[in-house]
Amino acid sequence: MNLHKYKVSSQIKLTDFSTKEVIDDAKKKLKKCRKKISELQDTMYAEGKYGVLICLQGMDTSGKDSLIREVFKDVNARGVQVHSFKVPTELELKHDFMWRHYIALPPKGKIGVFNRTHYENVLVTRVHPEYIFGENIPAVTSLEDLDDAFYQNRMERINDFENHLTKNGTVVLKFFLNLSKDEQKNRLLRRLNIQEKNWKFSKADLKERRLWNKYQFCYEDLLNRTSKENAPWFIIPADDKDSARIILAKILLEELEKCNFKEPALEPEILLQIDDFKAELNKE
Amino acid sequence: MNLHKYKVSSQIKLTDFSTKEVIDDAKKKLKKCRKKISELQDTMYAEGKYGVLICLQGMDTSGKDSLIREVFKDVNARGVQVHSFKVPTELELKHDFMWRHYIALPPKGKIGVFNRTHYENVLVTRVHPEYIFGENIPAVTSLEDLDDAFYQNRMERINDFENHLTKNGTVVLKFFLNLSKDEQKNRLLRRLNIQEKNWKFSKADLKERRLWNKYQFCYEDLLNRTSKENAPWFIIPADDKDSARIILAKILLEELEKCNFKEPALEPEILLQIDDFKAELNKE
Repeated sequence: MNLHKYKVSSQIKLTDFSTKEVIDDAKKKLKKCRKKISELQDTMYAEGKYGVLICLQGMDTSGKDSLIREVFKDVNARGVQVHSFKVPTELELKHDFMWRHYIALPPKGKIGVFNRTHYENVLVTRVHPEYIFGENIPAVTSLEDLDDAFYQNRMERINDFENHLTKNGTVVLKFFLNLSKDEQKNRLLRRLNIQEKNWKFSKADLKERRLWNKYQFCYEDLLNRTSKENAPWFIIPADDKDSARIILAKILLEELEKCNFKEPALEPEILLQIDDFKAELNKE
Repeated sequence: MNLHKYKVSSQIKLTDFSTKEVIDDAKKKLKKCRKKISELQDTMYAEGKYGVLICLQGMDTSGKDSLIREVFKDVNARGVQVHSFKVPTELELKHDFMWRHYIALPPKGKIGVFNRTHYENVLVTRVHPEYIFGENIPAVTSLEDLDDAFYQNRMERINDFENHLTKNGTVVLKFFLNLSKDEQKNRLLRRLNIQEKNWKFSKADLKERRLWNKYQFCYEDLLNRTSKENAPWFIIPADDKDSARIILAKILLEELEKCNFKEPALEPEILLQIDDFKAELNKE
């Protein structure tokens, strides 16, 4: 599997990226891959030097939740934390736009998954600029203040934030689940047609779907402005769920392997006493 | 499996409880059981009315971490959060003793696991009362203030806290992994004998082991004072790891089943529009 092609390392056009790729034996491959991820995470936890932040973005129904379920199945629950960001609360709006993301960051030793992320601040709020008014920003008094420069400035602040994280031991990996408009239609219709899936449907899904092209524009812009060597974006074809999962898992595994985690050693003075400790236990 | 016998529903003596029980086909049974737990958790998440707090206590090497790994393997990472409580930080000590536990509680829809819990406040700090001085409590000026009444008062506050939680939608289940002193010796020796396990060893493990009887006394007292119908303690024989896991998982499953979680229904006005939504998508 050539993983390099999913990485955004130059200026890209979203339409150049496929939304559908079918990987043979995807399920079987995922099983193997997630076992390895679990082993590496155990060592990472023991070492306590690195944290990992996985950012997941994608249109409604792109499969974020089920991907989380499948990719992290073998990781000790102790070692992974998932935070789903919804509409900001009143308390969250009383802080700057990064605050709620900052306090949800994974500690050293853990994999943190942001299910929707700080990028919503240059995404849903760019498609609906009026949402920004809720943030009570001093410099924002009218819609005219919310021009491209406003959002580009936010993206630079996000780059600074991620740069800070990666310089201090957090591996940052960002994944865009690239779904086609047709496949979204299929998945929405399934939610409507199958009664047990009805509850997953929200009227808002259709409202946002009508703004599909605006979203695609915003995604393309943010992918181009915020994919950095130390905090890269990967564009994952999402029309085939099993394949999306193994592609993402493989990329994660490769990045974890690069970190070369090591189990901590006992302090030398403790090592010297090991025989004494054994003797104490044995003579009880 | 008669699960009732593990529950603390009257005054107990810890020595009446077995530390070893071997369940046939424990691994296979666990696989089935955790699949069911996962399904119930999905529905609980969708419903968003209940949270579950699982409190895990036990002496060093009693198998808390590996139990978490095995029991929650099939639960979507989105739906479970584990918090391991260590020595309180300076910030935590600047608050009352329950504060750090309160802010780590699971939100509705999630299973929260406390790996060590608020019970350490009547356990390690009862075995080592001098630790309490770090909390700067106005009424505590000398060791004489830290008598049985002090800890019994704390346990009543804990009962109040858990009562409040259960009245507001959190299911509280507490498990004591009941390990024998002999089996702890085996496990500690394994950590010392096997080089790859060395890093798990801490000199403090031996120090606390020397206080085994004091710990057993504190455990027995807290089990008797804080096991309540709505927030019960279960004493899990922990010398056989596979069996401990399936016993705990079965109890958890039974308690989840009692909640009778239901997937939310769409609002009636949205249900009436379903055909319109389908039409909109189909005519695109």
